[in-house]
Amino acid sequence: MFRKVLIANRGEIALRVINACKEMGIRTVAVYSTADRNSLHVRFADEAICIGPPRSAESYLNVPAVISAAEIADVDAIHPGYGLLSENANFAEVCRASNIKFIGPPPEVTRMMGEKSTARQTMKKAKVPILPGSDGVIGSVDEALKWAKSVGYPVILKAVAGGGGRGMRICRAPQELPDLYNQASTEALNAFGNGDLYMEKFIERPRHIEFQVLADEHGNVLSLNERECSIQRRHQKLIEEAPSLKITQQQREEMGKVIRKSLKDIGYWNAGTIEFLMDEDGKIYFIEMNTRIQVEHPVTEMITGIDLVKAQLRIAAGEKLSEIVPQPIVINGHAIECRINAEHPEKFTPSAGKITAFNLPGGNGVRVDTAQYAEGVVPPYYDSLIGKLIVHGKDREEAMNKMQRALDQFIVQGIYTTIPLHKKIFEDEEFRAGNFDTKFMERFFEREKAKAE
Amino acid sequence: MFRKVLIANRGEIALRVINACKEMGIRTVAVYSTADRNSLHVRFADEAICIGPPRSAESYLNVPAVISAAEIADVDAIHPGYGLLSENANFAEVCRASNIKFIGPPPEVTRMMGEKSTARQTMKKAKVPILPGSDGVIGSVDEALKWAKSVGYPVILKAVAGGGGRGMRICRAPQELPDLYNQASTEALNAFGNGDLYMEKFIERPRHIEFQVLADEHGNVLSLNERECSIQRRHQKLIEEAPSLKITQQQREEMGKVIRKSLKDIGYWNAGTIEFLMDEDGKIYFIEMNTRIQVEHPVTEMITGIDLVKAQLRIAAGEKLSEIVPQPIVINGHAIECRINAEHPEKFTPSAGKITAFNLPGGNGVRVDTAQYAEGVVPPYYDSLIGKLIVHGKDREEAMNKMQRALDQFIVQGIYTTIPLHKKIFEDEEFRAGNFDTKFMERFFEREKAKAE
Repeated sequence: MFRKVLIANRGEIALRVINACKEMGIRTVAVYSTADRNSLHVRFADEAICIGPPRSAESYLNVPAVISAAEIADVDAIHPGYGLLSENANFAEVCRASNIKFIGPPPEVTRMMGEKSTARQTMKKAKVPILPGSDGVIGSVDEALKWAKSVGYPVILKAVAGGGGRGMRICRAPQELPDLYNQASTEALNAFGNGDLYMEKFIERPRHIEFQVLADEHGNVLSLNERECSIQRRHQKLIEEAPSLKITQQQREEMGKVIRKSLKDIGYWNAGTIEFLMDEDGKIYFIEMNTRIQVEHPVTEMITGIDLVKAQLRIAAGEKLSEIVPQPIVINGHAIECRINAEHPEKFTPSAGKITAFNLPGGNGVRVDTAQYAEGVVPPYYDSLIGKLIVHGKDREEAMNKMQRALDQFIVQGIYTTIPLHKKIFEDEEFRAGNFDTKFMERFFEREKAKAE
Repeated sequence: MFRKVLIANRGEIALRVINACKEMGIRTVAVYSTADRNSLHVRFADEAICIGPPRSAESYLNVPAVISAAEIADVDAIHPGYGLLSENANFAEVCRASNIKFIGPPPEVTRMMGEKSTARQTMKKAKVPILPGSDGVIGSVDEALKWAKSVGYPVILKAVAGGGGRGMRICRAPQELPDLYNQASTEALNAFGNGDLYMEKFIERPRHIEFQVLADEHGNVLSLNERECSIQRRHQKLIEEAPSLKITQQQREEMGKVIRKSLKDIGYWNAGTIEFLMDEDGKIYFIEMNTRIQVEHPVTEMITGIDLVKAQLRIAAGEKLSEIVPQPIVINGHAIECRINAEHPEKFTPSAGKITAFNLPGGNGVRVDTAQYAEGVVPPYYDSLIGKLIVHGKDREEAMNKMQRALDQFIVQGIYTTIPLHKKIFEDEEFRAGNFDTKFMERFFEREKAKAE
């Protein structure tokens, strides 16, 4: 096992990794920007090295500064956490060149999965279902009609050169397609100087479902089943849970099989997440892979009993999955996570500043992952996540009730947080019934608005 | 299920019960003394009623005040927590007469198990092994020799009228017995005016092992296996864990069987704990029964996944164990609890006052049960327990490591606590090896003293 690990991250995930290392007898080295000098990840690491000024580009994303710190501290390995350098293949290559083990997949694979079309092709080859899309330009209305017929309506037309919604049209029936095709093409031409269109299957009310995987460096891959992450605002997850109410045991097993094959094919190792959209019929389609630990990994830990960060460390040290994870994997109860962000709960604007009161909920089945504390400061430079509240219950009903009482006892003063928003979501009928999708928050805000009027 | 429950307690256990009720949709009523008006059990209950001045006798132990509060708040049931009124059979009778459900065993059984000799006889009848003792006065040296031979040495001579160690002698061999008998008898006569002696088997290095039980009101009893509670100072438990390293699976099953029979025989219901001493050969002997939830109940919850307080509520509402607890009971991993007391860690004197900083550890497998907070006040009137730190790991080694990193992150300023003491215990070789007994703390302090010199 490693003697000493540098954690190239900040906040709750840095402390999460430090804790895993400490419990395994590994010495820890924190890095920090000058804005984070009083952070708990600095306080609780065995050593801490300042790597630059507040802006991430000059500190946490500054590869030479991080590598220098690792060399000065003489570490064996670097854990990148999530975000920041975690999916930066160049960084992983520099680690390799510096003879420091990068705790994550090989850089070649990170690069491959980072390119959307390559990732799609790779998954398709392994028979992972992917969201149907035209593999190139659809040159005419006739071609569009033909393609749409082959995948079924609704479909979406998108500008090849596009972005920001321009040159984009959702089409729900063949008779609409000729007009929409021409509108989209004209709009694209005007906006981007290129009227070429491609097409994708469109899911009206998708769910976001993802599968957690672990793979060792000996070719063994394990699927730790799914998480349900449809409660999002502006593509930012707010609440995650496991298991999903909508995945059947048969799907779970089928997906496990194709996922294992795909990751074996590409030579993946360490932890990763494969993200899917689920349509209204319960069919799921690959959208992308995250080649790192996720913010929401604790919900999987709570229902499987597997410590994913410890598994990452042991995989990177060369151990086999069969030594790390007791198999078969047993799912126990239901877990939910709320992301506690320093944000105005309605305006969603970041809320930096000094915390004046900080009371954490505790008790049976309640877990808090945070690096914040009373009198701590939330700096304005980084993402707004200041903690995660995770609960575990024997079923979804108990977990929801537990979350409600824990949210009531999670007191943060001095800054705005998403706690009041979460409290309202947990009272919402649609949320409690579990019949939601990624458009949930839009409907929720409309309902809240209607209530207020 | 109950509509509304009054919690006749304070501190962490009051909040523990409030949480269980809230998660079950039951309204909660806290009671408090004027010293506790800013306590979290008051803040987080749905209603709170002041029942008197700080001294327990005038508030928490004041039966008419508690019953009046229950009547004013119109509750269905009272949960007594541990300590205070929890083993007061009169209180349970007053509840019954007031048509309020007492969440605990029937008062007749509480009374029966509160009398040491009755409890011993009851257990003996059900074939629960009890610590051998002469069932009455040993009238002569000859009789003493005969009795000692029948149970084996060492034995202890005790004054029938005695207490405080006077008239007490430990005898390790028959040739010592005549002298010791005469000394003890003379000492007893001088001290108490009565030279009568009785005898018990003496265990040089006993372990304290206890079994958690649940029984419903329909005659069903379940043993949730054992806890190891040998780390004590002045008969106060400091650290508890489950399972015990020294109980074999065969013992666990045998004890489960006799315990089930004994509790069925006496018509026990609700939660309870049966305490044993274990001798050097691994044999265990009944010492007493606690007819309530225990401080250390969370370690059992962590390894069984059963919420014991919710089980108490459901039992009191008339549910059957088969509906409450999934059977067979599966033991998962290892749990340890440290009692965090507001005490000087070496002098063990209570340390009341205002808390100026309070940082709770979090993360995977860490549970904190506390009603304290930053800027909270520890009043001088009650017992010194301000919180419990409980960890769960896949085995004892992982749990110990987790406890160490969690203790490092549990920061309390403004008062003294037992946290520094716990940190030292978790570094102690004898503790880590698990080869301890109830005399452990004496040896530990001697080692610490030797180190300091």
